[in-house]
This record gives sequence, structure tokens and C-alpha cells, in this order.
Amino acid sequence: MKKLVSTGELLLRLSTQNHLRFSQAVNFDATFGGSEANVVINAACFGKPAEFVTVLPKNDLGNSALNQLKLCGVNVKNIVFKGDRLGLYFLENGVINRGSKVIYDRQNSSFSNIQAEWFDWDDIFDGCDWFHWSGITPAISADSAEFLQIVLKKAVERNITISGDLNYRGNLWGYAVDRQKVMSELVSRTNVLLAGHYACEQFFNIKTNNYEGNELSSKLMKRFPLLQKVAITNRKEINASHNKWNAEMHTQDQIYKSQEYDIYPVVDRVGAGDSFMGALIYGLQKYDQEKALNFAVAASCLKHSISGDINRVSEEEVLKLAEGDRSGRISR
Amino acid sequence: MKKLVSTGELLLRLSTQNHLRFSQAVNFDATFGGSEANVVINAACFGKPAEFVTVLPKNDLGNSALNQLKLCGVNVKNIVFKGDRLGLYFLENGVINRGSKVIYDRQNSSFSNIQAEWFDWDDIFDGCDWFHWSGITPAISADSAEFLQIVLKKAVERNITISGDLNYRGNLWGYAVDRQKVMSELVSRTNVLLAGHYACEQFFNIKTNNYEGNELSSKLMKRFPLLQKVAITNRKEINASHNKWNAEMHTQDQIYKSQEYDIYPVVDRVGAGDSFMGALIYGLQKYDQEKALNFAVAASCLKHSISGDINRVSEEEVLKLAEGDRSGRISR
Amino acid sequence: MKKLVSTGELLLRLSTQNHLRFSQAVNFDATFGGSEANVVINAACFGKPAEFVTVLPKNDLGNSALNQLKLCGVNVKNIVFKGDRLGLYFLENGVINRGSKVIYDRQNSSFSNIQAEWFDWDDIFDGCDWFHWSGITPAISADSAEFLQIVLKKAVERNITISGDLNYRGNLWGYAVDRQKVMSELVSRTNVLLAGHYACEQFFNIKTNNYEGNELSSKLMKRFPLLQKVAITNRKEINASHNKWNAEMHTQDQIYKSQEYDIYPVVDRVGAGDSFMGALIYGLQKYDQEKALNFAVAASCLKHSISGDINRVSEEEVLKLAEGDRSGRISR
Amino acid sequence: MKKLVSTGELLLRLSTQNHLRFSQAVNFDATFGGSEANVVINAACFGKPAEFVTVLPKNDLGNSALNQLKLCGVNVKNIVFKGDRLGLYFLENGVINRGSKVIYDRQNSSFSNIQAEWFDWDDIFDGCDWFHWSGITPAISADSAEFLQIVLKKAVERNITISGDLNYRGNLWGYAVDRQKVMSELVSRTNVLLAGHYACEQFFNIKTNNYEGNELSSKLMKRFPLLQKVAITNRKEINASHNKWNAEMHTQDQIYKSQEYDIYPVVDRVGAGDSFMGALIYGLQKYDQEKALNFAVAASCLKHSISGDINRVSEEEVLKLAEGDRSGRISR
Amino acid sequence: MKKLVSTGELLLRLSTQNHLRFSQAVNFDATFGGSEANVVINAACFGKPAEFVTVLPKNDLGNSALNQLKLCGVNVKNIVFKGDRLGLYFLENGVINRGSKVIYDRQNSSFSNIQAEWFDWDDIFDGCDWFHWSGITPAISADSAEFLQIVLKKAVERNITISGDLNYRGNLWGYAVDRQKVMSELVSRTNVLLAGHYACEQFFNIKTNNYEGNELSSKLMKRFPLLQKVAITNRKEINASHNKWNAEMHTQDQIYKSQEYDIYPVVDRVGAGDSFMGALIYGLQKYDQEKALNFAVAASCLKHSISGDINRVSEEEVLKLAEGDRSGRISR
Amino acid sequence: MKKLVSTGELLLRLSTQNHLRFSQAVNFDATFGGSEANVVINAACFGKPAEFVTVLPKNDLGNSALNQLKLCGVNVKNIVFKGDRLGLYFLENGVINRGSKVIYDRQNSSFSNIQAEWFDWDDIFDGCDWFHWSGITPAISADSAEFLQIVLKKAVERNITISGDLNYRGNLWGYAVDRQKVMSELVSRTNVLLAGHYACEQFFNIKTNNYEGNELSSKLMKRFPLLQKVAITNRKEINASHNKWNAEMHTQDQIYKSQEYDIYPVVDRVGAGDSFMGALIYGLQKYDQEKALNFAVAASCLKHSISGDINRVSEEEVLKLAEGDRSGRISR
Repeated sequence: MKKLVSTGELLLRLSTQNHLRFSQAVNFDATFGGSEANVVINAACFGKPAEFVTVLPKNDLGNSALNQLKLCGVNVKNIVFKGDRLGLYFLENGVINRGSKVIYDRQNSSFSNIQAEWFDWDDIFDGCDWFHWSGITPAISADSAEFLQIVLKKAVERNITISGDLNYRGNLWGYAVDRQKVMSELVSRTNVLLAGHYACEQFFNIKTNNYEGNELSSKLMKRFPLLQKVAITNRKEINASHNKWNAEMHTQDQIYKSQEYDIYPVVDRVGAGDSFMGALIYGLQKYDQEKALNFAVAASCLKHSISGDINRVSEEEVLKLAEGDRSGRISR
Repeated sequence: MKKLVSTGELLLRLSTQNHLRFSQAVNFDATFGGSEANVVINAACFGKPAEFVTVLPKNDLGNSALNQLKLCGVNVKNIVFKGDRLGLYFLENGVINRGSKVIYDRQNSSFSNIQAEWFDWDDIFDGCDWFHWSGITPAISADSAEFLQIVLKKAVERNITISGDLNYRGNLWGYAVDRQKVMSELVSRTNVLLAGHYACEQFFNIKTNNYEGNELSSKLMKRFPLLQKVAITNRKEINASHNKWNAEMHTQDQIYKSQEYDIYPVVDRVGAGDSFMGALIYGLQKYDQEKALNFAVAASCLKHSISGDINRVSEEEVLKLAEGDRSGRISR
Repeated sequence: MKKLVSTGELLLRLSTQNHLRFSQAVNFDATFGGSEANVVINAACFGKPAEFVTVLPKNDLGNSALNQLKLCGVNVKNIVFKGDRLGLYFLENGVINRGSKVIYDRQNSSFSNIQAEWFDWDDIFDGCDWFHWSGITPAISADSAEFLQIVLKKAVERNITISGDLNYRGNLWGYAVDRQKVMSELVSRTNVLLAGHYACEQFFNIKTNNYEGNELSSKLMKRFPLLQKVAITNRKEINASHNKWNAEMHTQDQIYKSQEYDIYPVVDRVGAGDSFMGALIYGLQKYDQEKALNFAVAASCLKHSISGDINRVSEEEVLKLAEGDRSGRISR
Repeated sequence: MKKLVSTGELLLRLSTQNHLRFSQAVNFDATFGGSEANVVINAACFGKPAEFVTVLPKNDLGNSALNQLKLCGVNVKNIVFKGDRLGLYFLENGVINRGSKVIYDRQNSSFSNIQAEWFDWDDIFDGCDWFHWSGITPAISADSAEFLQIVLKKAVERNITISGDLNYRGNLWGYAVDRQKVMSELVSRTNVLLAGHYACEQFFNIKTNNYEGNELSSKLMKRFPLLQKVAITNRKEINASHNKWNAEMHTQDQIYKSQEYDIYPVVDRVGAGDSFMGALIYGLQKYDQEKALNFAVAASCLKHSISGDINRVSEEEVLKLAEGDRSGRISR
Repeated sequence: MKKLVSTGELLLRLSTQNHLRFSQAVNFDATFGGSEANVVINAACFGKPAEFVTVLPKNDLGNSALNQLKLCGVNVKNIVFKGDRLGLYFLENGVINRGSKVIYDRQNSSFSNIQAEWFDWDDIFDGCDWFHWSGITPAISADSAEFLQIVLKKAVERNITISGDLNYRGNLWGYAVDRQKVMSELVSRTNVLLAGHYACEQFFNIKTNNYEGNELSSKLMKRFPLLQKVAITNRKEINASHNKWNAEMHTQDQIYKSQEYDIYPVVDRVGAGDSFMGALIYGLQKYDQEKALNFAVAASCLKHSISGDINRVSEEEVLKLAEGDRSGRISR
Repeated sequence: MKKLVSTGELLLRLSTQNHLRFSQAVNFDATFGGSEANVVINAACFGKPAEFVTVLPKNDLGNSALNQLKLCGVNVKNIVFKGDRLGLYFLENGVINRGSKVIYDRQNSSFSNIQAEWFDWDDIFDGCDWFHWSGITPAISADSAEFLQIVLKKAVERNITISGDLNYRGNLWGYAVDRQKVMSELVSRTNVLLAGHYACEQFFNIKTNNYEGNELSSKLMKRFPLLQKVAITNRKEINASHNKWNAEMHTQDQIYKSQEYDIYPVVDRVGAGDSFMGALIYGLQKYDQEKALNFAVAASCLKHSISGDINRVSEEEVLKLAEGDRSGRISR
């Protein structure tokens, strides 16, 4: 397989233990994550060669973040060390009817000032057949939004497949004058899109019925003619600890609907969409489209059982679930 | 709003971690709680001015208990430091079909010898419009039972609204000659009562069908004519980890039934009744009766997601749930 | 009651915390277990006198393993200290649709070289009315398989009731030439057998429909005429965190079907079969056959709520559940 | 060897972790201890047969306390289960110049109401050659003081060697009218005494110079003619983390001075005196008097390295240190 | 006593556990601190009325920071909630010859944009007789530097005693054009200064010999004529775990030298200077100058035994040490 | 720099927390280490290219071990996955006068069956200028001893510098007929040797006075003429928590003696020799011989402050200490 490349902010995640509220916490679990990094790491776990492009501060925290990528086999040679701070977020992990809370603390981070000219794009895109972006990067700062536009153009010039995840985050986008314009430009260059109803309403004023993606995908494909695939994950939130989870994928002429999983008790849902996307990118290159979709939704189902942003599962484990073994039997 | 006052024992709670049995525990989580203190703290969290009256030992544990009240904004200036020991209880937190176990260790505590003349009641009741008591206080000792009778009379003289929670605890009441007489006197001075079927059978020989409170409330109101409101919380215990939870409130001429919540996996149900009562006291002064009931049951639903006796939720979070959003969605 | 004797390997169990994957673990919880030891300890907890026969290394780990038996009141005076290493296993505790994983590390352990002549069998079987074995012991090594055959003959000679648990473990049996022959000899001397569909297929080529034991038990009783009772536990694995659990027991002329339990969220299912067997051995000597079966399945239901291999429950707690109280109500 | 018997209160010890102050603690480590139990357990560890006589509450905490004794091989068959509560103490473990703090919470415990007639003294003293008591038992309550007087007489009648540890605790003795009288009677029946300068001043108005025991021991032996041996441990407290530690033993005609140990950083000094006494009782029966003293002081030196009241060391480890190897070299 | 007022940034401190390096950490202990807040809290602990003026973000972290102040009895009514982020710092706690490392992450925090006009200075300074500042506040940003100048003028106008701590931090001051000018203006309005040799060289080009403050204090008093007292703490760093610690105080006509403490093993030295300052402010109003100095150095000696920025000691404990009891004896 | 290659067993280390004894442990910290791997990782940390050759089992534990190497930048491409078990060792970390204890459990591990023909030695030695071995590898098994002899010959053929560490481990060598012969052959091919007095006595019957290496080194150089450098580390063990530490290096015509460090409180001394060796290999290629020695001893001094086998320090930190700054000052 050729290389997957992505770019985005890698964050230190500080989460309370045992579902404690922030006001109860006397310590935080420390892991690393961030939507685009998660996608790259998750695809790399399955064996897709991968490279991540980002900016990290030259201190012990930046170095630990780098180690997370290296451990997962992601190529880090084009990562730039600049600036003073690693972006971070605090997570209070919810349970029952109490939802999780995120406090972002990523303004003025090393990544937020990223400039395209800091990087050697010929080296980065050498041997690359897929570039992935998410809607979080342009939401961070004007610099990162402009950076992503430039990078996307460079990828398009090289005939690389482009995937994107809308990833609407209401707490970000503070800087933005016109997020609809920014996102429209990005999606207009994209071939494979992970979209959601709420995000499409926020970004494109496309209002559709939840939990049925036909209308949404056809509207998107009409507006953005380069789109070849629109994937939608559907999460029915019975409560914070019990979700139903499936996905669908729309191409120009086909609709694929995945199996649905009944997920409880949710251990950690942060990064579920990223685990779907990482598995889909890998799956679309290895399996047929239907199997790729079921592979991706099974992978992301398993993500809910794993603490931290990153989906630590093997292809074998995902296939076992995708092929129908939901038993969670002991292997011994 | 004017001030809520209550009195009772504040205990050190020592609970095993991760649902371990007592026999497995090599350490205990240390928090503070107690039915009446929980009610006061929970109401104070929503913004009701509040004062708590109790006796604590003059040592580091008594001081930590005091800090818990102060942190929550409860007025502590009339708390008396006397005696040698803080009451405490050990909690083994159950799961699946294994119920939680409580070992009380509160005999001969500082509070158990409480005397009404130690306190300045004019100051305590200054600006107070609501006094709350629970059936735990008279169950501790003859001293505390007599103390509560005196305090209740003082509150009645001042035309303060009186609420009570029957809170039957089989493991207490060891000292008592006639708990029916004690409790009847207390309830006869009470305007708003949180009652339960089992407690009414134990205290008043009123036998009624579970999970339907009409008969119970009308019998109570007949026997205790000062009662203006009888609230009943209904817990269907499917197992220790899965409960259904609703409530009802009966007035002289109205019956209100709340929404029902399907609660799983239960994190910590200790203090759920107290979180209901604290929210009801607050809600009845801010909202109409039906909304107050739904506010209270939503607040106590959320309590099940929070470790420790105290319900650490905001009015905004409770309203969101009471208005129907049970999704536990991530806020980010 | 007279004494229960069993023999098998006592292992150090090293399990990840909070459902973490092996790759995330920076520490392991350390407890002790092993199928036969679990049975003996669980029966001893209810009051059955019990002795355990095994080999442990003469080091601090062997000593800690010994302490686990002593704590539970099991007679350990015939345990031999020899060899260099305590067998151990690593456990990654699964959740949702991710199953638990076991890594066995028990080859060349002190127990694996066990020889019958190291022990004083007259003392061991003095006052003994029940001997229990499991299919794990013959799976460990040729030495342990031969050892078990010898011991079984000694027990049969003394007219002791023999029970066995097939306990098929795919990851063991590496040494074996003909596991069907080994197991057939063992079962042919057995009076009470805990069997499973999959195990019977693996060991005896008996293929039957899952979740209905009539056919299986009659085939077993036909092939092994000394069998007086065949017990079968049925686990419906909805996922790793949600199981349905019941059991049945077949005698020459009767079929008993137990209550079924809906178990979620599973805390730790390892040792559930052993808790069933320990409770059944005890129950069959104290209660009638139907009650004994329901006692055993209730005991093993409770096991799922307890961390570690050993079922830490009292007879009173088991009876309360067996008699229908599934509420998991707080005792206070 | 014949049996050592002692009696006293076994407590639950709740200590803060990592030298945290009480005001910082959100959990406590839970272990079991108490001066007389420590002595018995420590002697039993070296191989001295031992029995402990006490009263425990019939609940899970009493049972865990019992397990601690059983684990160490102490005979527990005459322990009585009565009353409601296990005595407990809270420990804040000091460091540098900040001393440790103890909050006792043992009033009205099961033990505090102990009565001699609850026990079968013929069985208890059967095969016993040594009885040990400490000055903590008479300090707890009038009941326990009277109980100890009775027991001591019973032991004297049977010609059992009696040892005692003065163990002055300023925070206890609250009940006492005349502690000097109580203690004088006890010491007057004692053959081997562990004494300290400060305790002798408090109990007997014997004022002597610290860190030189000749005068003290001769005064004691004159006043209490049954005394055959007076042992004194000397602790030079440079700070809470750095102590110098030696001991001396005086007989009618000999003075033995032990080696001195330089102990830093102190991990846990609680129970050091008890570890000295347990080792001395054992040592006096196995070694000559000088070696016994050096054995006891080495054992108690090692105690400072071990968390919890109990000294978990082997005879081999103590001898290695007593014979001069202070290196703390790795054994591998 | 009248009120102490200070202003500065209150930070979330995230420290590794058990001296782990940043690269090893999978979680962080979370506490709150900051030089000026520490001083105020430490003085408030002894009983000095105190108010703290700062800016916090309106989120759960800001609220937890607020609670830390409230718990310690500090008046917080003039604290402003504005901006997005709480400043924070990461701490790797060193040991032996490996020093601690701090990573500041406080740029663009809520506090860094502080403006004097957000506050009601008449209320703040009402009943105030002492204002304290530290050199960290002007080092954070141009805004905070200007803010402090304005506040200092307001305090001077009201004839309030002004104390300052130079607190040179090499990793801050990034924004500054001329830190010497900024600091000179501040010190020129100050009456009581905590100074250090290195800080004076950095800020004022005053080079003097270490560990002897006569020359330094006289140069400072000459240059800044309002200075009435110059205090200097001397730390001899034998290694990270072993420090010697004393202090001296210079007035116009007197030199006071404190006792010296030998501190090992250092638990946490962060905040030691602040604990000195808080105790000195309190001590100078309660004791004579020499006793105040010895009180302050004893308090700060104890700080080294306490985890977290804040010195959790009582006046009684400090006096005991200041009066010479360094034994760290157990209180029981 | 060219590449350092080494081979040896990489182990899972399971250590008790907070100096607990094995008998107290309910969990173990899990890290990875092993003498040769430690050397390679420590040299790689400073920037020396490095490759490690070993055999790991194909399971999650083997994979985690691999990750430890990858994280540190060590080339792992020639590592073979074979066999069933990862070697492991249990560590009880001592304190004060109680030494650490190691329980090895590495027999029949994947590594113990290692065969030279499994590896591509041309690739391994490509670009290699230094090969390092330790006396632990030949102590494990006959296979590993033979393997090491073969590898050493291959390295010698390629004119690679050979270093060795005698590393005598009394608990290993169980298989060996003639360890003197084995070790003599290995040392006879070695150029740089890390030796100790006790090891030389055990391996070569060379008895010399401790703490003075002149005689020892000259005897070694006479017996093994290829030896160009003999390094000796000297540890004076005042107790387990306080060691003095220096080193010396002997060449044909020069003697270098390092600075001495006073190390307390020791956090973790396991791996100190390996940190010395890794730093020496790096230092000899970057600095002159004297500086290299002081660099190595400073690096290994710092190791005592770091938990786990691996020395997590930077070249800058080591140089700061080697150049005399022992203060352990905070960097902020």
C-alpha cells in the first residue's frame, strides 16, 4: 500500500478517572489524541503506511506526543518543532444520562500558528495516495485554516485521493468570519467525505432528517461534484452509556448500510468517528465497498471499549466482529 | 431566596473502590455525607441560601467535614465543635445482583450527644423560610431524637415551612423504645414529606401497594393534617446496576407524576433521595409544582452517575435532562 | 460435613485495570486463582471442610499463593514446595464487544512436574468424601496428566465421590498426543460432571445443539456409565458485558433447569464455572437437588460481580438471590 | 517451642498515602494492627506458636481483622465476636520535621467492653509458656483494665513468664482515676519489661536521664522485685525521617547494649517497639541474651522499612542484619 | 487583624507522581497554586484575614481554582471571571541529583489580560493594612505588569504596607522590553522585600556574595529608600533531596539571622518561599521581629514536607518547630 | 556515528510499589528491561545509532517489549518472533537496611532457545562499529551461551570493537558445567570490559581488595591481552537507600578515577551499571577518556533517581552534573 498523509493538531488529553466530575478530580489521566492523528494512527495500526504533519513545542510534552505517533509506526520525519505550547483538552467522561464535557485549551498552541512553507511537501507527498483532513483544523485559527487550504491544493495537484471529516465543534471556530466559505472550499476538493446531519446544517444550511442519509448525501454530492463517497455514522444516544451505532455509505450509484451495534456500557466514545475513518480508508483499499463499510463500523464499535482517543484493535479482531461474532467470549 | 436550615450528622464515608468487597479492600475512598447535609448542600448548589447545624469533633477529620460544607457555600457559623469522634460509615458499592452494604459506625459520635441549648436559634432561624429534617436524626440516639423535637417546635413557632424525609434505616433505632411515637410527633409538625411504602409500614403500620402512591399519600394526609405535600420516589430495582426511577407528589387536591428514568449502569445511588429532596425544596420555590417535581427527579437521576453522597450538578444540567434530553451527548 | 479434596495448579493472575488493553498497561493487579483451587476455596467459604493438593515454588510468590488458600480456611498441610516457578496468566479484561484475552505462562512451572509419590495420600484422603478434578490439569503436561490418573484411581479405591469439570482450554494441551483418550479415562471414573457442548465436541466428538442439554447429557451418561449427574451451564453472550446465565442438571431419571439470570455489566467472569461447581458440591450435600442447582447458579451469577478468580459471597447472600431477590438493594 | 499468648485490641488502621496531610486525603490505606497483636504476629512469623485473645465485631471489618491474624499463623479459636464496632485509628505519616499524627477512634469498641468470663482460659493457657501485655489495654477502658488484671493473675497462677510493654499513650487513659495504681499492679506481676524514660515518669514518677538506662532499670527492679529483665529502646529523633535506634537490656547482674542503627529515610515507624518485643520474646528462647537483644533491635530496625504495623521479615533477614550486613544489597 | 490583599495568577499545577519523569507519566496530580495566592492562603491559614484578586475563566477549572481559595478562608468576592483559559504549569518533581523541571503554560491565560478597571478597589482595600506582590505578575504580560503598577499606586495612596517578593523566573519575562525598569518602579514603592542574590543580579545588576546578605540588603536599602525590611532566604542545595535552609532579615538598624534547618528528604520545595512570606507577614504583626523571622523559616521548613504549592500547617505546629523540637515525634 | 549492536534478553519487570514487600503487593508496576537492552537504549538516547537483536514471543507482551525499544529509537528490524513466553522478573524494591529482592522467571523463555542461524548477521553488522555483550546472556541457557560465542566471533571477524559487562548473577548459571571456561572465551575476545571484584572472583578466581581496581585491572589485562580498557564501578552501600558511587577506568598505560557521588535516597538502582556502560560507549566516541568516564558515572548517578531499568536522561543533563552542578535546583 502507498502512504496516507494527514495533518492536524496532536493534543495532550487530560481526563478525569472513573467518571469523576471535574470538581472532584485530584488527578488526570494523560494520553494523546486529536482527530486527524487518530485517523492516521488507526489506519497505521492495520498496516497502511502513514505520515503525520504537525507542529509541536520543543519540550517534554511535545516529545511525549511525538512518541505516541512513533509507537504506532507513523512516519514523523517532517514534523516541525516550534512555538511554546502543546494544545490540550480536558475531558470529563460522562455516564448514564450525564454527558461528557470537553474543555478545549488549544488557542495559541504551536500548531495554531502553522505555516505551509515550514514543510517539504515533495517529501511528504512522495509515495502518498491518500490525504485526509478534518473540520477541526480550519476551526482552530486563521493560520491553520489557510494552511489546510494550501495543503489541499498541493494534494489535488498530485492527484491524491482526498478524504475529509466535517467534525463540527461548536466550541471552536471562534476566530472565523465565514466558516461556510472555508468549509465549502475544502469539501469542493474532497472525494470521500464523512458527514453528519448537524454538521451539514451548521456548515452548509442543509437541513435533513436524522438517521437517514439518502437526502443528505445526494444534496452534498450535487453541491460538491468531486465527492465520490459520502459516509455517515449514525449514533442513537439512548444515554451516555448506551448507544446504538451504525453507518452508511453513498456513492454515485450505490447505497450501503452497515450492521448496527448495540453498545453498552460505553467506556470511551471520543475518537469513535476517527476510528471509523481510519478503518474506512484502510478498508476501501483492501476490501470491496460493502465490506469496507462494515469493517469501519465494527472497528469504531470496538473503539467504544477502549480508553483514550486511539483505537487499539487488530484487523483480525475487527473482522471477527464484522463477521458477526459479538459474543465478547474469552480467548484462552 | 430566604434560607434553608437543616440539622443532622455529617459523616466520613469510607467506600471500597471499583466495586470491591470489604474483604478485598486495601484502601478506602474518603468523602463526606449524611442525609440532611446532602439535602442542604444540594439545594445550596442550585443557589438556595442554606445553613447547616451540627456537632463535629475538634480534630482534622471534623475540620475536613466542615470544609465540605464550606466548599458548597453552606453557612457553618453555628456549628459546634465538641466531643471526640466523627460518625462514619463504610460502604461496599454493589453491582449486578449484588447489593451495596453499609456498616454504620456512628454510635457515641460527637453528634449523638447533641443538645439544643448549645445553639443560638435566633441566629440560626434568622432569615430562614424552610427547615428540613430526616428520620435518621431521631434514629441515632435519645439525645438526638429529643434535640430534633425541640428544634422542630422552634421552627414551627417561627412559621417556617417544615419538610421531612422518613428515611427508615433498619440498622439504626437501636436505642428506641417507641419509634412510632417519635416519628408521629415529627411528621405531625411537617408540611412537606418525602415518604416511602416500606418506611410508612415500619413507622406507622400503613400497608399499601408498592409503586402507586395514591392510597399512601391520602392515608398520611388524613393522619397528619398539617401535611400539604407528600412526595414519593419509586425505585424499581431490576438489579443493583439497573434501576428505573420516578416520583410522584400529592397535594390536597392534585397528583403529579414525574417522568421515569431508566438508569444504568448505576455508579452510586447513595444520596439519591437526598438529591431529590434538595432539588424539590429549591424547585418548589422557583418553579410550578409539576416542574419542581420533574426537576427533582431529573436531579436525582443524575445523582446516580456521581460518586459520593453529594449531587454535583448544575441547574442547567438538570433542566436539560428534565426537558427531555437524555442523550448524554458530549459537549465540545 | 466431610472433606472435599482437589488438586490442580494455583496461578498468579496478572490482570490489566479498568479494561485497559495489554498494550496500555503500566501495571497489573495481582491475585491468585486456578480452576480447581477456585472450586475448593468457594466450597470452603460456605463451610465445607476442604484440602488442596498442589506444588508451589519455595519463594515469595509461592508463599503468597499459599496464603490465599489459608485465608479461605483450606487445609494446606500436604502442599509440596519444589521447583522454580509459579505458573501465571495475564488477563486483559474485555468489555462491550471486545472479549477478554488470556496469555497463559505456565509451562515448566513447579506444578507441571508433579509426581504422585511426593504426597501422603492416606492423610490427604482421610475424612474425605468428595474429590474434584478439572480438565485443565491433564492439559498442562504429560506429568500432570499421569498424576491425575493415579490420584483418581486412589480416590475411586476409597469410594469417594468424584466430580469433574471438562474445562476445555484451546491454548493448552500442547503436549498431548491423544487428549480424547486421556479425558475419556478420567470421565469414566467420574460421578458428577460439569460439561459443555463445545468441550464435549472437542474431547469426545459429541456434537449437539447448544443451549439445550438433554441430548448431550444422555449421550454422556450412555458412554460413561458411572456418571450420576451431568450439569451444564449455559451462557448466552450478548456481548462481553451482558450475558444471560442459567444451568441444568441431569440425573438418571430427572432433569432440573435452573432460573436464568440477566447479568450486566459483567465485572469479571473468570471463575464463574468454578463458583458454580464449588457451590454445587456444597449444595448437593446440604439441599435437595433442585435447590442445590439453583444455589449453584445463583452463586455463580454473583461471581460475575466480583474481581478476581474467587467468589467472595456468603451462603446467606446466595440464598437471598436464589430465592428471588434480584434487586441488589442497599443493606443499611 | 511452647505457645505465646497475648490479648489486646486489634484495630483498623487508616493511613494517608505518600505523607499527605489529613486535610489532603481523598483515600486511606487500610491495614490492621495494635500493639499486642503486632507482638504476637511478629513472634509467630519467626516460628513461635502463638494465640491471640480479643473481641471483634461480627461484621466484614471484624472478619478482615481476623484474617490478618490467621494469615500470620496465629491461633484465633478463642476470639469472641461481640459488640458493634472495630476500634480504629487514623494515621498521618510524617516526614522531615513534621511528625506523624494519630487520631484514635476506639472508644466503645467491641474490645472496650471485654469481660474475662467470656473466654476459656484453660484452653487459652494450655501449652503456653509466655504471656505478653501492653500498657495500651488498661488505658482503653475500666473494663479492659480490670480484664487485664484478671488475666495476668490467671497467667501467674500457671507459672507462665509474663512480659509487658509500658507503651504510654497520652491520648488514651481518659477514663482512669489512678493509672499509677493500675500500672503498678500489672508491672508487679511482670518478669520482662519493655520500659521507656518518659513512660516511667508518667506512670511511676521515676525521673531519669534519657539515653542511658542503668539508673532507670535499677529503680524499676528495686520497686518491682519480680522483674528479671528490663529492656529499653532508645530512639534519637534527628527528624521524622532520620532516627538512630538502639536498645539495652538489664538483668539482675548484667547489662547488654545493642548495636545502633542509623535509619533513614524512615518509611513507617509505627509498631517498631512491638517488632522489638516480638523478636525479643522469640530470641530469648532461641539465642543467648546478648544475641537475643541484637536480634530484636535488628528486627525493629527493619520494621522502619515496612508499611503497616506488622514487621514482615524473616529470621534469616534479621540475622543477616544483626550480623553486620547493613548494605541493603540486591539479592539476584 | 486587618486584611491582607494580594493579586496574581492562580494556576492549575499538573505534577508527575513518585518522581517520575515527564516521559514516563500516564497521569498527573492536579492541585492549584501560584506565588501570590500561596502567600495569601498561607497567611490566612494562620488567621490573618485575606483577600485575593485575580481573573479566572468561567469554566469548571476556574471554579475548582476558586474553591481552593474559599476552602482556605480567603475572601474571593472581587474575583472576576473572564477569558478562556486557566494558566497552568507542569511539574516533574526531582530527586537525588536530578532537579525538578517546570513547564509553564500560562501565556494568553485569563489573568494575562487583566485590567485594573475591572475591579472595585475601594471595596478591595477596605479594611486592608497590607498588600503583597511578586515579581511573577509583571513577568507574565505587559497587561499584568501595567496592572500591578496601577494597583501598587492605589495601595500606596491608602497608606497600606507593601511587601514584595522578587521571584525571578527565567522562563517568563518573554514580552518585556526592560524588566529592570519595571521592577525598580515596583520595589521603589515597597516596604518589605523578599530578595535573593541571583534575582538582584538579574533585575538590578547588584552582584554580591551568596549566603551572606549584609551587602545585598544595604545596597537595596540605599537604592530603594522606602524599604524598611529586606528578608533573604538561603538555600544550600546539597542535592535535590537534601537542602539546608535558613533566612535573615535586615532593617535599617538591625540584622536578624534565623536558625538553619537540615531538610531531607525533600518532598516538595515548590512554594517554600511563599510559605516563608505568608508566615512573615503574619508573624510581623503578632510577634517581635526576631520571632517573626524564626516563625517564617520554620513554617517554610515544614512546607518541604507537604505536597502541593500550599503550606498546610498550623501556627501551633510552626511554633513547636521554631522553639526547637525538630524530632518529628509521633503525636498519639 | 556508526551503529552499536547488542543482543540479550528483554524482560518484563514486575515491581512492587512504594517499597512494599512481595507479601503485601496487590499489584505490580510493569516496565521492560534487561542488561543488554538497557545499554543499547541508554546509548541510543544520547544519539548513538543502535540495533538490538533478540527473540520475543508473538503475543501482546512481546509486542509491548518491542515498543519499548522502538520508542527509544533502537533499530528492531532483525528481532525474531518465536517461542511462547517473554522472560520476566519480579522486583521488591528495598529501602533503609532492607535490600531489594529479585525473583527471576526466565527459564524456557523465547530468548533462552536462541539460535544464531535465525538472524541475518550481514545486515545486523552493516555499519556497526561496536558490539556489546553481558555475562547474563551466557548464564541463561546452553543455547544462549553458544549463541553468544558465535556472535562474538562474527563481530571479531568484522573488526568491530567488543565490550562486555561481567554482570555476575548468582541466581542464574543453573545449567552451566563450566562458567569459567565460557566467560574466559568471551572476555578473551573483548576490548572494553566492565568488571567487578566479586564477579572476577566468581568467574576467574581473581581475588583482589575491594574498592581499589589497580590490581584487578592489571591481572585481567595480563590474562586477556585483547583488553584495552577495564572499567570498574565502585558502590559503597551505606544502606539500601544511601550509596556512594564512583568508577575508574584502566588502559594499558593510564588510570582514570572519576568523581564520587553521594546518592540518597536511592529511588531505583537496577540498571545503574547498564546506564554507566551505555554512557561510556557513547562517551568514548565523543569525548576524551577522562571525560567519557566522568560522563558515564554522572549518567549512572542520575539513573538512581529514575524508576525502571532504563536511564531517561539527556546528554545535557548528564554534562551539567558531570561538570559539577549537584544542586538539583528547579529549572523554571
